[in-house]
Amino acid sequence: MPRNLVELSSLAAVEALRQDSVVVLPTGAIEHHGPHLPLSTDFLVAEESAKGAVELASANGVNAWLLPGLAYTKSDEHHWAPGTVWLSWETLMQTIVEIGESIAQTPCTKLVFYNGHGGNVALLQVACRELRRRFGLQTFLIGGQMPANGGAKSGETESGLGIHGGHVETSVVLHLRPDLVDMSLAVRSVPEHLLDYDYVGFGKPVSFGWVSNDFAASGVIGDPTTATAEFGKAHFENNVTQAAAALAEIARFSPSAPQKRIGFSVS
Amino acid sequence: MPRNLVELSSLAAVEALRQDSVVVLPTGAIEHHGPHLPLSTDFLVAEESAKGAVELASANGVNAWLLPGLAYTKSDEHHWAPGTVWLSWETLMQTIVEIGESIAQTPCTKLVFYNGHGGNVALLQVACRELRRRFGLQTFLIGGQMPANGGAKSGETESGLGIHGGHVETSVVLHLRPDLVDMSLAVRSVPEHLLDYDYVGFGKPVSFGWVSNDFAASGVIGDPTTATAEFGKAHFENNVTQAAAALAEIARFSPSAPQKRIGFSVS
Amino acid sequence: MPRNLVELSSLAAVEALRQDSVVVLPTGAIEHHGPHLPLSTDFLVAEESAKGAVELASANGVNAWLLPGLAYTKSDEHHWAPGTVWLSWETLMQTIVEIGESIAQTPCTKLVFYNGHGGNVALLQVACRELRRRFGLQTFLIGGQMPANGGAKSGETESGLGIHGGHVETSVVLHLRPDLVDMSLAVRSVPEHLLDYDYVGFGKPVSFGWVSNDFAASGVIGDPTTATAEFGKAHFENNVTQAAAALAEIARFSPSAPQKRIGFSVS
Amino acid sequence: MPRNLVELSSLAAVEALRQDSVVVLPTGAIEHHGPHLPLSTDFLVAEESAKGAVELASANGVNAWLLPGLAYTKSDEHHWAPGTVWLSWETLMQTIVEIGESIAQTPCTKLVFYNGHGGNVALLQVACRELRRRFGLQTFLIGGQMPANGGAKSGETESGLGIHGGHVETSVVLHLRPDLVDMSLAVRSVPEHLLDYDYVGFGKPVSFGWVSNDFAASGVIGDPTTATAEFGKAHFENNVTQAAAALAEIARFSPSAPQKRIGFSVS
Amino acid sequence: MPRNLVELSSLAAVEALRQDSVVVLPTGAIEHHGPHLPLSTDFLVAEESAKGAVELASANGVNAWLLPGLAYTKSDEHHWAPGTVWLSWETLMQTIVEIGESIAQTPCTKLVFYNGHGGNVALLQVACRELRRRFGLQTFLIGGQMPANGGAKSGETESGLGIHGGHVETSVVLHLRPDLVDMSLAVRSVPEHLLDYDYVGFGKPVSFGWVSNDFAASGVIGDPTTATAEFGKAHFENNVTQAAAALAEIARFSPSAPQKRIGFSVS
Amino acid sequence: MPRNLVELSSLAAVEALRQDSVVVLPTGAIEHHGPHLPLSTDFLVAEESAKGAVELASANGVNAWLLPGLAYTKSDEHHWAPGTVWLSWETLMQTIVEIGESIAQTPCTKLVFYNGHGGNVALLQVACRELRRRFGLQTFLIGGQMPANGGAKSGETESGLGIHGGHVETSVVLHLRPDLVDMSLAVRSVPEHLLDYDYVGFGKPVSFGWVSNDFAASGVIGDPTTATAEFGKAHFENNVTQAAAALAEIARFSPSAPQKRIGFSVS
Repeated sequence: MPRNLVELSSLAAVEALRQDSVVVLPTGAIEHHGPHLPLSTDFLVAEESAKGAVELASANGVNAWLLPGLAYTKSDEHHWAPGTVWLSWETLMQTIVEIGESIAQTPCTKLVFYNGHGGNVALLQVACRELRRRFGLQTFLIGGQMPANGGAKSGETESGLGIHGGHVETSVVLHLRPDLVDMSLAVRSVPEHLLDYDYVGFGKPVSFGWVSNDFAASGVIGDPTTATAEFGKAHFENNVTQAAAALAEIARFSPSAPQKRIGFSVS
Repeated sequence: MPRNLVELSSLAAVEALRQDSVVVLPTGAIEHHGPHLPLSTDFLVAEESAKGAVELASANGVNAWLLPGLAYTKSDEHHWAPGTVWLSWETLMQTIVEIGESIAQTPCTKLVFYNGHGGNVALLQVACRELRRRFGLQTFLIGGQMPANGGAKSGETESGLGIHGGHVETSVVLHLRPDLVDMSLAVRSVPEHLLDYDYVGFGKPVSFGWVSNDFAASGVIGDPTTATAEFGKAHFENNVTQAAAALAEIARFSPSAPQKRIGFSVS
Repeated sequence: MPRNLVELSSLAAVEALRQDSVVVLPTGAIEHHGPHLPLSTDFLVAEESAKGAVELASANGVNAWLLPGLAYTKSDEHHWAPGTVWLSWETLMQTIVEIGESIAQTPCTKLVFYNGHGGNVALLQVACRELRRRFGLQTFLIGGQMPANGGAKSGETESGLGIHGGHVETSVVLHLRPDLVDMSLAVRSVPEHLLDYDYVGFGKPVSFGWVSNDFAASGVIGDPTTATAEFGKAHFENNVTQAAAALAEIARFSPSAPQKRIGFSVS
Repeated sequence: MPRNLVELSSLAAVEALRQDSVVVLPTGAIEHHGPHLPLSTDFLVAEESAKGAVELASANGVNAWLLPGLAYTKSDEHHWAPGTVWLSWETLMQTIVEIGESIAQTPCTKLVFYNGHGGNVALLQVACRELRRRFGLQTFLIGGQMPANGGAKSGETESGLGIHGGHVETSVVLHLRPDLVDMSLAVRSVPEHLLDYDYVGFGKPVSFGWVSNDFAASGVIGDPTTATAEFGKAHFENNVTQAAAALAEIARFSPSAPQKRIGFSVS
Repeated sequence: MPRNLVELSSLAAVEALRQDSVVVLPTGAIEHHGPHLPLSTDFLVAEESAKGAVELASANGVNAWLLPGLAYTKSDEHHWAPGTVWLSWETLMQTIVEIGESIAQTPCTKLVFYNGHGGNVALLQVACRELRRRFGLQTFLIGGQMPANGGAKSGETESGLGIHGGHVETSVVLHLRPDLVDMSLAVRSVPEHLLDYDYVGFGKPVSFGWVSNDFAASGVIGDPTTATAEFGKAHFENNVTQAAAALAEIARFSPSAPQKRIGFSVS
Repeated sequence: MPRNLVELSSLAAVEALRQDSVVVLPTGAIEHHGPHLPLSTDFLVAEESAKGAVELASANGVNAWLLPGLAYTKSDEHHWAPGTVWLSWETLMQTIVEIGESIAQTPCTKLVFYNGHGGNVALLQVACRELRRRFGLQTFLIGGQMPANGGAKSGETESGLGIHGGHVETSVVLHLRPDLVDMSLAVRSVPEHLLDYDYVGFGKPVSFGWVSNDFAASGVIGDPTTATAEFGKAHFENNVTQAAAALAEIARFSPSAPQKRIGFSVS
């Protein structure tokens, strides 16, 4: 059964939405992903994952609905590469604030960002709070590649640095749209010098501001050469399963405690 | 042959694009279209029309490419209806300016807005000039329902006032996605009192600022009860044919005259 | 009898304004108009036309009032020519939004933009809706050169392309301020190559983004050499007459239908 | 000889302007001025004063030019009074920045704000520096009522508190446009309790944020009952004379010292 | 007794603040002050002066509280000098508006800017009114160097032009932090050519837009060579005494008159 | 030896800064921290930690410098509690962008945010990239409580939920400023119901938008009753030691690989 909210009329949407409905907005990116992957990689993965999760959750009784995704988001780290089409932080934030304001006019109170692009994570976290404060919406952020938040796990030859166009992402696109991958152009490009640092780095205590050509002109950060459709299929399906379970939890989630349960005590 | 630009890699896009390439951005809307039509009506029509025109033009030798469309645009006239998801003029303008700036980093110099929502027309005209001035892009605006710019022609029972959810628009959705139309809810809602005015009105010398519930709570301005899939098919296909011809003309269009041809003379 | 609203005191303005009052804001431009016309052409025409229409309408019983006009508006298409003094779209929109918000604090509910510059038309249409939605004002846009919306009709030697500094505009200034016109510098500059296109062009199905030096360095788009004060007088007076009639209609205009008259029927 | 810059063509303006030209922008206000004065008081005074000063300076050999004035400015202190039409600080600043940017494209390098509204003074000072830094313009601010910067001197019954609609301002309008003054409604409204304070007050060491109805609902701060056209004439003409002399000085002003004259010495 | 508001808890702050409380925000600058003074000069002086005044006023029974100061403000006139860290007018205004909005959520209604940087004066005056209008706060501006508003009085060798890094400012830093002054690098730099002008200049009828390297590359406008810690001590202590008295007055200040006292009379 | 950059003159700062210099900006918050902790908790901790780390790193040979911290930042999650003084995301981002632009005018290329407030983390990550892209700065983010990024580790009675005003934060303030803590008001407030969720929660795969009174009116999320100055001292000193080591690494950090070392290979 299709779960595209915007395929309903206004009246039908009002009838279909309840306070425990979960509305899901995929957020992708159109950006350089190396010579072997399409510009639409993150948008494709976000939309397909979100669609799968919404349909599975709905089949399990969750009142979940999909919105048309945002293709163009904050890809400023790939601004230097032609074909990247990106929005500034101000514009993307305003876009999300206004979408949230629109959703807040419906009976629905839960909005989920299903994000396929690591460069959006921080901004979406800012947005989640903004929408909570201004419109009273419950807001949630699911990374495109669960459970790693907004990024892909690394392959074995990636030294934990496979975050863009590498083993996992390439595998998933090989599964979803093999016609869009040219493995003959896949090149390993791992910034191994980052391993020399103890504090600064991806997932280390000190984060840092980078653009993707700080590391290499290939636009890849990882090793796509090991990618397979089989791994991609397993990874994608696991993500969908987990995300559907997360949507079910979101449907019953309340940030406020039942009064009796909260842990208050005076010292 | 698929013509989705973002299904190419960055490098492939640079190779594919030439100075006479035509890149097409569909601009739809997610907004109240009456009880019988989906919220996505304008987005659906814009994307399908643009896709058809790009493919036909490409088959005729034009180097035309499709971008992912903008679903959420300036539907402020339907802001009162739940399910409408809309952006302010500032945010939509900034979005388009930044997309244009990204396109201007590629070899392509021609950007076409293929618009399916009348409420975007004026803003897109402002944007066309802004992108021309700031980034040197050639910019063009094709209405979603050629030849009437950004709106649909009226049906016979509409007194020329069928601009939203009426005969033409309903017919086209009946052709494209009959499963999304509920004709049992189609209601004629024609603001015939506007015919009493000579100066003020749609397409009259004095335009006016309106929101859609100025006229009626149905959210319809027109008569959908006469709609048929047959009319919709003919209308849609005619639009695609005309738009493909327009894309071919755009590919060879130059605003500047060949020096010898321009009509200069001193009085 | 003078009809300048701002020549009243605050209290007198509150007493003078009624719900059917019509307040008129001229919007001109300060921009390059070729070597023979003053920078103030559009501002002059907008102010004189609006003044004439307000006075004639008032004489006919309309409660119409004139505001000081906006000289500096969106002349981005002439940005390259020294002497053009122009505002960005953001700044002009904000200006108009704030003027509208101020007017909405008075008893008046009808605000008319009397526009003398084609480059403002699209932005003013966006503004009309913004003011309607945010402040409940009824808003209207009258072109400076009625009935052609925001532009001038073409002269016989202009091939329908006389939109800036050509036959009509030059004639009107010859009528209003002959001391400001130097016909010895009037040059025909018609971008006749635009006639080669079927879809793209002024008033054609596909509009395009242009700046005025796309066509010729003269800053003229049209043929001023045929201009006469006689034609200008007739044209101007006809415009004023028509605009005064439009103001009378605006005074009684309601976007909402009388309940009994609107054309509702269930199919 | 008329000195309206915008009555020249673009080419004539380029020829007329030199590096020592002085371009003058009147800045007025449309705001509540009590029951006896028109809303346009500040705009009227600014435009008439600036016109007089430019013409007198030009007669004395200064290459001075007048621009169309800004009627709508920052009257936020009178926001509560219907008929006040005002811009926010952001919008007025952006307006002035963009006008300055346009002027900086001409041969002229000196831009003078001739201000008739006290509420603009601080913002114009911010703007003067912004234009100097960003566009290299020399910028100057002349108050509408020289020599008191941006305000009027007080009459004898005003205890030094006649800053809005009082003796001086009323007198000047009685001189310029007696038809717009209704002395039968003139009311003395002096916030004498402010005299109780040593530090806080108009022109005292501690300035404070006020809106005009903090003091009285009349919208007057001063005593207009003593106003006369004779005093207004003398005051106005003195202002024009002084301002013309200031324009002459501005024409030869350089912020940078001749190298030999500056007072450098090492201790 | 410490008077730092933010050293209280939220609840304690609510209890401590009353309607006649006075909350003081120091506004400094981080900017070039010549070779002999630290970048932090204005921030240091603002914070120390404000602290002194708040403590003295509190000792005298005023419910006065200090906020953490703003180090980074509008130093655009020193933008050219490395080490200057400055905010644009928009960003500083927004910062102050939002701080004011936060303060307006407490029981306190009086906010004082204690300003140590002349370049902030005009902007803070705009802000004082904005906060008054939007949030109903009473707002006040005390210059860092009372009584001269926002600037320092001149030394004897400064011809009245000692406004930045000169005799007074250097003396005060010699008193507060002698370790931060290098008198061996103190250089007299007085733009004496400004004395040639009658209208244009610091404190003259016509103000002008300047950046500090318009005058000299030293970044000094004044004569620091005569500075002494003794003069600085006397000057600083006098400022603190005066400012404390001003805070006491502010605590009892009301812009509105007691009804019986205001000077109304009909002519 | 003091390491406050702004205590240098402009010239001295230029001499002191090198390409491997590390400039550190503490970012705190002024916000509700429960009844037992001061509003300034995060600002205090950020400033003291950053000062300690800069001094220790400098003693170890790093060219590290401290900037005045930002007291007011993005505390929108505590907006409801009087005494919280907070900036919107737009204003804080603009502030940081402009500070970064100023730093980029010096010889220094490395800017570190030493953050004491969890609510800033996401925004500072957005800012790090923005400054890298626009100004070429190397940017880094150190959490106030190393190694946990931007938050405090939990105490034993906090079930991993001690993120605001709990065991760790209270202990650190007991160490730094015991006079500012009132342990008699310390209350345990742990939202244990969040433990019921598998996906949604602090540090779980799905993050969510929350404001602090979603959980409890106390404004505490954690258990301060177990806090001790001893634990606080150990925790603080460990943080300073780690952060100083991080600063040393930052001084030699390069995002770009030495050409020979990077792991490229063609599959």
